[in-house]
Amino acid sequence: MELRYHRPLDAGTLRALGIPSPWTFGLADRVRFGELDALGHVNHTAYLRWFEGFRLPFLKAREVTDYGPDAPRLVLRAVGAEYRREMGMGLDYVVCGRVRSFRTTSFTMDYAVYLPDPEGSAPLTATGWAGIVLLAHDGSGRFPIPEAGRRAFIEADGATPEPPATS
Amino acid sequence: MELRYHRPLDAGTLRALGIPSPWTFGLADRVRFGELDALGHVNHTAYLRWFEGFRLPFLKAREVTDYGPDAPRLVLRAVGAEYRREMGMGLDYVVCGRVRSFRTTSFTMDYAVYLPDPEGSAPLTATGWAGIVLLAHDGSGRFPIPEAGRRAFIEADGATPEPPATS
Amino acid sequence: MELRYHRPLDAGTLRALGIPSPWTFGLADRVRFGELDALGHVNHTAYLRWFEGFRLPFLKAREVTDYGPDAPRLVLRAVGAEYRREMGMGLDYVVCGRVRSFRTTSFTMDYAVYLPDPEGSAPLTATGWAGIVLLAHDGSGRFPIPEAGRRAFIEADGATPEPPATS
Amino acid sequence: MELRYHRPLDAGTLRALGIPSPWTFGLADRVRFGELDALGHVNHTAYLRWFEGFRLPFLKAREVTDYGPDAPRLVLRAVGAEYRREMGMGLDYVVCGRVRSFRTTSFTMDYAVYLPDPEGSAPLTATGWAGIVLLAHDGSGRFPIPEAGRRAFIEADGATPEPPATS
Repeated sequence: MELRYHRPLDAGTLRALGIPSPWTFGLADRVRFGELDALGHVNHTAYLRWFEGFRLPFLKAREVTDYGPDAPRLVLRAVGAEYRREMGMGLDYVVCGRVRSFRTTSFTMDYAVYLPDPEGSAPLTATGWAGIVLLAHDGSGRFPIPEAGRRAFIEADGATPEPPATS
Repeated sequence: MELRYHRPLDAGTLRALGIPSPWTFGLADRVRFGELDALGHVNHTAYLRWFEGFRLPFLKAREVTDYGPDAPRLVLRAVGAEYRREMGMGLDYVVCGRVRSFRTTSFTMDYAVYLPDPEGSAPLTATGWAGIVLLAHDGSGRFPIPEAGRRAFIEADGATPEPPATS
Repeated sequence: MELRYHRPLDAGTLRALGIPSPWTFGLADRVRFGELDALGHVNHTAYLRWFEGFRLPFLKAREVTDYGPDAPRLVLRAVGAEYRREMGMGLDYVVCGRVRSFRTTSFTMDYAVYLPDPEGSAPLTATGWAGIVLLAHDGSGRFPIPEAGRRAFIEADGATPEPPATS
Repeated sequence: MELRYHRPLDAGTLRALGIPSPWTFGLADRVRFGELDALGHVNHTAYLRWFEGFRLPFLKAREVTDYGPDAPRLVLRAVGAEYRREMGMGLDYVVCGRVRSFRTTSFTMDYAVYLPDPEGSAPLTATGWAGIVLLAHDGSGRFPIPEAGRRAFIEADGATPEPPATS
């Protein structure tokens, strides 16, 4: 099976690449020379770049934003990552992501990086998460997640709606 | 007062720049054009690059490694960051860091980014942390933090020694 | 026709994407968010990163190096680029490259970036070149281009053999 | 003599660092870990980032632009670089730059990277150049170099005015 890069991979395709539940949205790419650091491994910041690149088509597919003139600004509040296994030059990988939970104007995403393996179980190389807030483009304040987005978070990602933060 | 870039700033100098306790080691630098992303702000991965750059002279000063042929490999296990305030082109900033806690072969660092203000209180733009493990260069396994390093973590950073992990 | 990313595209495939002669080796990829600069366009250094990434599989295919333990070191002596047309987020592009000329231990490559267009003529967004020298891995001096590589430069790229430099 | 980073160095200071004529404007900085590539040397694109970073304060000092709302857009048409000597982690360097020649709405800059040496002659590690065009911010076409800028190019850089291009 030839790996399809840069195009969303659905649950069935991910399973066929050895990537487990709950992931239902993945994007494949290949490690570049410029992502290696002086130790010859993928630098830890490259993974966060991958998660950033993942968010753009993912949040369009989830109908949170169309990146148009009236679309909300997506502001990163916090990120984290855990590194399980070093990666080297030219490796194929799949970034998976989903919304874990959401409130009125903010949500938390989880990420995972796998080395696809059509024959078995794809090794997990890293995990990550990000906390994101929506702001109105005109600077007038917070922007509520559109209803279509909330529905997609629940139905496609199994995300948990949470009560508004009290802080 | 002229800001000194790229050279370690001690507790007294940090206080004079409006940067509070417990920080006792800082490095000043300036935002570059290439660190901005398409939204015109410093990209979230740039902060993690700053923390990475900070670690190198800091861990030498703390006598954990001299980066020589027998020095341990420093492996990043996990990182996190919180973003408090967007940063723009050409801003001067100070990265501060310290060891929060350590075990036999691993330790956890905290980081903070401030906009130095000799007249008052330096705004905090981001915080971060990293979990680091020492491995022997020859691949033979874990490498204990040198005694001089453990002492420096306690005396210079006020770090907490923790019992060996049971996992 | 679906664009195949990261896998060498041959002359026939390139022509079907509107990319003209003399290009016979291309690699497709997609613009990432992290390649944009604060002006919202692909930063000028990203193109040079693309050319660098192109060289690795290209020079393996041309049998100049297998990147093994006895392979020569490839040292960049000089580069240049011309920018014809700004590129934005998410665009698909094809990097093409070929060897223009070579001497005993050095060669010059040309590059071009096209926006593939199966319906017509692919717009050219940038061109570039690089001068590369081969050094022996053990530091003993220059390393001659392997005979298989010289043949591939001539046959696959139409490269011009040049007399040894007199300097 | 302590090297001053990030602040323009004038002709006298450059000479005292072993950097020869005709350079009269320099900016000092230090190699970062993230600028090294998998071979352990400064990646060739990092130099072009340094030249880019140099242009911003330089063109303000030369009164070509104040980067204000009515300032021209600076568009890079072409770049080149030659690499003379590999650079490693933590090295101090000085980027020098000047305008070599200019026309009505465009100019060509030269760059050089030196390792400052207060005791003697600073080694040259790389040279570069860039061709830049000024465009009106409102998209209405080319933007003439301001008279103050033309004067500064001649007086401070010894630049050569050239007749309008006939193409």
